[in-house]
Amino acid sequence: MSSARTVCVVACACALLATPAATQAPSRPAWLEPYRETATRLIHAATADHFAWRRLAELTDTYGHRLSGSENLERAIGWAVETMRRDGLEDVRTEPVMVPRWVRGRESAEIVFPLKHPIAMLGLGGSIATPPGGIEAEVVVVGAFEELRSRAAELRGRIVLFNTPFTTYSDTVAYRTGGPRAASQLGAVAALVRAVGPTGLRTPHTGSVQYGQGIPPIPAASIAAEDADRIARLTARGVRVRVRLTMEARAEPDVESANVVGEIRGRERPEEVVLLGGHFDSWDVGTGASDDAVGCIITWEVARLMVKLGLRPRRTVRIVLFANEENGLRGATAYATRHAAHASNHVFALEADSGVFNPASLGFSGSAAARNLVRDIATLLAPLGLSDIVAGGGGADIGPIAQAGNAPMMAYLGNAGRYFAIHHTPADTIERIAPEEVSKAAAAIAVMAYVIAEMPERLPR
Amino acid sequence: MSSARTVCVVACACALLATPAATQAPSRPAWLEPYRETATRLIHAATADHFAWRRLAELTDTYGHRLSGSENLERAIGWAVETMRRDGLEDVRTEPVMVPRWVRGRESAEIVFPLKHPIAMLGLGGSIATPPGGIEAEVVVVGAFEELRSRAAELRGRIVLFNTPFTTYSDTVAYRTGGPRAASQLGAVAALVRAVGPTGLRTPHTGSVQYGQGIPPIPAASIAAEDADRIARLTARGVRVRVRLTMEARAEPDVESANVVGEIRGRERPEEVVLLGGHFDSWDVGTGASDDAVGCIITWEVARLMVKLGLRPRRTVRIVLFANEENGLRGATAYATRHAAHASNHVFALEADSGVFNPASLGFSGSAAARNLVRDIATLLAPLGLSDIVAGGGGADIGPIAQAGNAPMMAYLGNAGRYFAIHHTPADTIERIAPEEVSKAAAAIAVMAYVIAEMPERLPR
Repeated sequence: MSSARTVCVVACACALLATPAATQAPSRPAWLEPYRETATRLIHAATADHFAWRRLAELTDTYGHRLSGSENLERAIGWAVETMRRDGLEDVRTEPVMVPRWVRGRESAEIVFPLKHPIAMLGLGGSIATPPGGIEAEVVVVGAFEELRSRAAELRGRIVLFNTPFTTYSDTVAYRTGGPRAASQLGAVAALVRAVGPTGLRTPHTGSVQYGQGIPPIPAASIAAEDADRIARLTARGVRVRVRLTMEARAEPDVESANVVGEIRGRERPEEVVLLGGHFDSWDVGTGASDDAVGCIITWEVARLMVKLGLRPRRTVRIVLFANEENGLRGATAYATRHAAHASNHVFALEADSGVFNPASLGFSGSAAARNLVRDIATLLAPLGLSDIVAGGGGADIGPIAQAGNAPMMAYLGNAGRYFAIHHTPADTIERIAPEEVSKAAAAIAVMAYVIAEMPERLPR
Repeated sequence: MSSARTVCVVACACALLATPAATQAPSRPAWLEPYRETATRLIHAATADHFAWRRLAELTDTYGHRLSGSENLERAIGWAVETMRRDGLEDVRTEPVMVPRWVRGRESAEIVFPLKHPIAMLGLGGSIATPPGGIEAEVVVVGAFEELRSRAAELRGRIVLFNTPFTTYSDTVAYRTGGPRAASQLGAVAALVRAVGPTGLRTPHTGSVQYGQGIPPIPAASIAAEDADRIARLTARGVRVRVRLTMEARAEPDVESANVVGEIRGRERPEEVVLLGGHFDSWDVGTGASDDAVGCIITWEVARLMVKLGLRPRRTVRIVLFANEENGLRGATAYATRHAAHASNHVFALEADSGVFNPASLGFSGSAAARNLVRDIATLLAPLGLSDIVAGGGGADIGPIAQAGNAPMMAYLGNAGRYFAIHHTPADTIERIAPEEVSKAAAAIAVMAYVIAEMPERLPR
């Protein structure tokens, strides 16, 4: 997921601590009795085997990363369409989206003084290139924007290192998105940003950089916490550390990609849509297993399980694998534009884009009336340990259409500590994810979606 | 440390579980009373501040990795000599050693079929290069040597992947050292070895490969556990995975390096030597902080603390920072050769080459009489939680001289789980090591060395 989305995740984590009231729903609300047996069947079907994990493995092993504009993504989209059809989903289609095509190219960074040492780095998504021979300059280490401004006189011609210790994603990602333009405004020639994540194993974290209007863009890269610490210790000892940064990154013309859509058409109110999805694109490192192949697989599972169990709820359940969440949100925008006339028919939207790491939770944003009903439904998730609903649903991809339709929103929220340890890194692979975590997430979303799609009245706005 | 050394570490870990008798020494042996106050002073001095950790940071930050034959190592040797002299150590000198010079060069590996994907890899130390365009071939995945042999007919012209899950270092390192030559004998054109370490964050582990006499050498590389798993899953699904391996690795002519030696000359029996040390070289990834800068720093600390406290024990305490443990053991051999006439004067030898991660322990190899005395001395380490002595002392660098002189040997053994997580990886940096772990190790070795150097009779053989 991109940065915008994550402010919400962190807010949710806080809300989790602050809302003991979340558990006060009755344990067996009477109105749910008609759905209980089906809920149990869905949970059993989802958790009976490791089907979802194996599908996640097939996707991420075969296609790898799925950066917008890459062949990998287009091939994976073809596979998803074909596989959804084989699953028996209905009206399976692609909805075209023009997406940016940013190409990383070769890249490296090294300390050149006091002695040559490679730096573990990843260029930031959207960064421009350096000149072919790289940029070599003395490094100025700052801990925060205030320090950057207070040292404005030292920055001309220098490489700025933002060495801000990771606390939470929302607190520190501002240095990745906004640090480079702030450094450029003060005359820096390149920017390095301490990895936005806990110290790993020499693990840089990529992600998007946002240049400013009228501010010259400068090359920008993430470096591992260990490299940032080392440069900071050297400079603290008075060593005038010099670094060479070499990046070939370039933006190519936009290319056509697509949102992938598949449905279980509603039995009585097909025009009313329960929207579930994740984003199918990823950064170009690792295999984007947690960000966000797994979100796509677990929401897709809901429809597959409904076909398998012969369920056709009252309303349409629509699965969307969104394009280009990471560096443009073009898929979310295209969906909202294309379906604008039907925005108000979106009765509920759920996004899974925070991984499935345990302990997980469900976040919700909507009216009090809707929240009470959702809390009731969540009592059916007690066997999964997911009967609490925390504050803060939503997601970058469902945001535009849900906002247009004023739809209640939910997020499946994997444990943030485990998620941000591998977020936007080469280590975002399926090895981190237990099969049971995938099945459990699919089961929970399936029950929630089924009841909301089946209950007589639409979920109140 | 290299593989030979580690067999011992693992043996020690087993012994730790198997020897409850290790704790049966009396808690305050009377003969130790004269040493108790000095032991307490040494422990206080070692643990009063983070001096040793800061020195470790200065060394690893400034000089980085210290591969044999590199400028980094020679610059670090110069620094060590100068700094030992400033500390007040005596007879500080270098003893020349010719060492191999292996240069990694650029290297990469990628899956080229079914789709292009980078593989996280590190060439193995000593490997030959591929042809300039790399070697591209279908991969045969095997789990063990038996499986390799049973599939001999499939191997000609293929790249073999040894995908042996990590259990202990001693159990799995055989695939790194001996897998490539076994694959070559059966016609393989290159070998990939699953990282010898627990699954990290897409973390390959380098280390030496050993080619065989009369067997054509083939390029050999370590790949991350995640990449090995992925290739194994793909092939298990029937995908004929093709990989391209490109390595520029080359061996250059031997160059002169040195063991660094510094002493506290013995007050009464200067010819009798208590030898303490680690190896100053490292692999060319990370900064070799745990393998083995920290072993050098904590043994060197013993002499520095003796100078600081005005201690001059009866026997000489000699610190040796050995050259070329990782890929040749030339420093160990050179020391044993140069000091052969005085081998029997080495009354005790301690090597620190397993990190300092807690929970740590002290391993010992020697006669029962010596072990009983060493166990008594270890009661002085109770404040450090190190009063148990486990079976299995020694080390690759002290082995040749100790064997020649039949000297009792000790090893400082850091926790193996934490050590092998970063062993021979880019993540072997000081960030992993707590200052208290360094101080504690120095304190323990200082007390042990002091008593053995001071007590009236030499430690029995």
